[in-house]
Amino acid sequence: MTRGFLQELVNILFGYISKTSQRSTKVLDFHHPHQLKEGLEGFSLDLSDQPETLEQILVDCRDTLKYGVSTGHPRFFNQLSSGLDVIGVAGEWLTSTANTNMFTYEVSPVFILMEEVLLRKMQSIVGWSDEEGDGLFCPGGTISNLYSILVARYHFYPEVKTKGMGALPRLALFTSEHSHYSVKKSAAVLGLGSENVVVVKCDERWVSSILSEPTLVLSLQGLVPFYVNATAGTTVYGAFDPLCAIADICDKHTLWMHVDAAWGGGLMMSDRHRMKLGAWSVTWNPHKMMGVPLQCSAILVRKRGLLQKCNELGAEYLFQRDKHYEVSYDTGDKSIQCGRHVDVFKFWLMWKAKGSEGFGSQVNKCLENAEYLYDQLQRRADFQLVFGHKPEHSNVCFWYIPPSLRGMPPGPERDSKLHQVAPRIKGRMMEKGSVLIGYQPLGTRVNFFRCVFSNPATQQEDIDFLLDEISCLGHDL
Amino acid sequence: MTRGFLQELVNILFGYISKTSQRSTKVLDFHHPHQLKEGLEGFSLDLSDQPETLEQILVDCRDTLKYGVSTGHPRFFNQLSSGLDVIGVAGEWLTSTANTNMFTYEVSPVFILMEEVLLRKMQSIVGWSDEEGDGLFCPGGTISNLYSILVARYHFYPEVKTKGMGALPRLALFTSEHSHYSVKKSAAVLGLGSENVVVVKCDERWVSSILSEPTLVLSLQGLVPFYVNATAGTTVYGAFDPLCAIADICDKHTLWMHVDAAWGGGLMMSDRHRMKLGAWSVTWNPHKMMGVPLQCSAILVRKRGLLQKCNELGAEYLFQRDKHYEVSYDTGDKSIQCGRHVDVFKFWLMWKAKGSEGFGSQVNKCLENAEYLYDQLQRRADFQLVFGHKPEHSNVCFWYIPPSLRGMPPGPERDSKLHQVAPRIKGRMMEKGSVLIGYQPLGTRVNFFRCVFSNPATQQEDIDFLLDEISCLGHDL
Repeated sequence: MTRGFLQELVNILFGYISKTSQRSTKVLDFHHPHQLKEGLEGFSLDLSDQPETLEQILVDCRDTLKYGVSTGHPRFFNQLSSGLDVIGVAGEWLTSTANTNMFTYEVSPVFILMEEVLLRKMQSIVGWSDEEGDGLFCPGGTISNLYSILVARYHFYPEVKTKGMGALPRLALFTSEHSHYSVKKSAAVLGLGSENVVVVKCDERWVSSILSEPTLVLSLQGLVPFYVNATAGTTVYGAFDPLCAIADICDKHTLWMHVDAAWGGGLMMSDRHRMKLGAWSVTWNPHKMMGVPLQCSAILVRKRGLLQKCNELGAEYLFQRDKHYEVSYDTGDKSIQCGRHVDVFKFWLMWKAKGSEGFGSQVNKCLENAEYLYDQLQRRADFQLVFGHKPEHSNVCFWYIPPSLRGMPPGPERDSKLHQVAPRIKGRMMEKGSVLIGYQPLGTRVNFFRCVFSNPATQQEDIDFLLDEISCLGHDL
Repeated sequence: MTRGFLQELVNILFGYISKTSQRSTKVLDFHHPHQLKEGLEGFSLDLSDQPETLEQILVDCRDTLKYGVSTGHPRFFNQLSSGLDVIGVAGEWLTSTANTNMFTYEVSPVFILMEEVLLRKMQSIVGWSDEEGDGLFCPGGTISNLYSILVARYHFYPEVKTKGMGALPRLALFTSEHSHYSVKKSAAVLGLGSENVVVVKCDERWVSSILSEPTLVLSLQGLVPFYVNATAGTTVYGAFDPLCAIADICDKHTLWMHVDAAWGGGLMMSDRHRMKLGAWSVTWNPHKMMGVPLQCSAILVRKRGLLQKCNELGAEYLFQRDKHYEVSYDTGDKSIQCGRHVDVFKFWLMWKAKGSEGFGSQVNKCLENAEYLYDQLQRRADFQLVFGHKPEHSNVCFWYIPPSLRGMPPGPERDSKLHQVAPRIKGRMMEKGSVLIGYQPLGTRVNFFRCVFSNPATQQEDIDFLLDEISCLGHDL
């Protein structure tokens, strides 16, 4: 039964993968929560005491895919993670079949070593030596950023591990107003308090934060700064903080410099787009720009042994010292997790299949797509770019201006109307299912679309389609 | 190419799954780290700039499985998570093909609703109404336990989110000496400090902690208790804290009661073994006793809305309020993660395929296996049980006594020799690869084996084999 059932499931998955790459297929088949909950054509989410037949299980699988969102579709522009890399998928299938945990070499000999190989590769790309670099793969970029604050705090105040925050002065963290919310969220979780995150204003031209010394001085009222998060590739604008300038300030004031390159890290694979990070720790999510299936995020730390000291508790049921192999490979006590999912194999396999060069070309292609979109938007009268400069990353932000607003002078009335355009188009887009793109307001800017490219399957024709579709869906607004 | 390549990979996985269930197959093919790193018969972990051929990728996949550990083998007794449920594996294959994130309904409509269905099911089994229950699936039991402390702290001191621990009194947590290390680890991470975790002594007979009022009073020197972790199924002994008694004390002193049922939660599926948890929050890992592939862990919270209030930051690029669907289904802001892996589908699919009753029988079978092992150990002169009472869970702890130690009187000399027996047998066992079981010391007890059953494929013959194999491997020690 096993093989026959799995083969049928695999055939369903083959069908799904094949449809995902077809432009005639919808990106999603939208239903409201109440519709899905009521049950659609025999698809019921409810669970019962009695088992279903295997035939029904296969139908459930088909329906689950049918009512989901095709994140690998070349016209899915909604999230920083997109695409459906076949080698990556193969890697995940193997990972789930191997069904093991990352805590000890004993149960994950191969995967533990692959993690070491990949971390060293990433550290060397970041510019660190094998001796200084350390790291871990974590469940997502927010947890990676949390680690950076955790190890920074421990580095300056190792007593925090046993005594808690009560034994420490009131600490302050710095991050830019366009940085990811994970810095504030982590500060709340770690007991630092979100109010103690000093949010640095951004400069308008390049949308990147400027952390100047007066900012630091101003913030010193009763607070002890210890950590600065700089962003390499912000979530919405894809902007880069001035990393070298921030590194100099951090160096001078002995502050921990973290670079959140969750999104921008992928650019390190490209000879054309690589930058100098200059950080003590780095978050880099291969599941974003590099197209590795979810999840695959690394925290890299430029101080070997710090993760271990910060987090180890030496549980004897797991990390026995009298094992017959070299126990330094039992890396699980570096982690704030106990069991940890194997996120590394799919990434390793993709690297084998593409080589560093393949990742580089993939990243270059995504950035070329962004430039193409930027060029098209400049030419069209029905769209307005948020920025007049070329994209730094693959993010391109813009408004669609429906005919009714085209003659209207700038001001609160136009803004208020324009603010409603993107959500209404997005709603229609979801109902139609032809394409998917995100929108948001930011600061004083009313709702605008953000297009991001991380799927190498996307071609210029998909970009043309996106603009035509938005125009078509929003023409009457 | 896609289909052909994936089919070849699937054939490799079929072969692996089929071998996993064969008792003639080794549980592992052990190699030391330096051997694997040097490369074995063409299997190289190194990554290069150039791509490999697809043929080589398939060889890499085969080798990765070959040098790994077969955690689904009926003779793998090493970890609380074991087994290889075919429906669960199918669920993971689909999940990785769907490749999406749990933050919004927009990109995970079906999975978000499945999470709701499963959490409600679990909450109802725990005894809560739909109105009071809340929860999340998290990356592992340690993170689930971390959530319990996080929400408890926020419940009593909501100002902690913005102001940090500096605004709070010195807080104390209680847990038993046999509880999982995640309580201390979380206290360190959250800025509470591991020293402020009061470790309650356990009573010898039932190996369960007794949290008496004097303990509380004694600990009140400058500390404000707010949280008690009780364990339902300890990691090593599989023991249960006196949950009702602890609930009474927590109630009287207005302490948050968390039950870590990461391991014991599975017993809730069995009519025969279900217990009353009486908690404000519960950790329950379906990836342990219920055999769901890694990872699948839930934190359940008996206060609807608390997770959301504790963790929300309302990032506008993700959690827009002006979407065209009911945005209360965008549950991602409840989480301390941003992107979150879909851990729910495999569990949902297994529930469909087994029904609650199927899970119940599976759990019963594992506990019957534990009883069988206990009976065998009682009968054999070459083994000594750690406890003279029947197992409460599927953990059975015992020493193997080699002939050289059998006549020796109890005392430090025998202890010192006995302490070395389990690690040496384990080393030989790993080299031979015939079976895998864990060992550890605990308190004054020298190294002993801990057998756990969570794989329904394990039969009595495997248990007989385990004992004979230990005896054979350790006879000359």
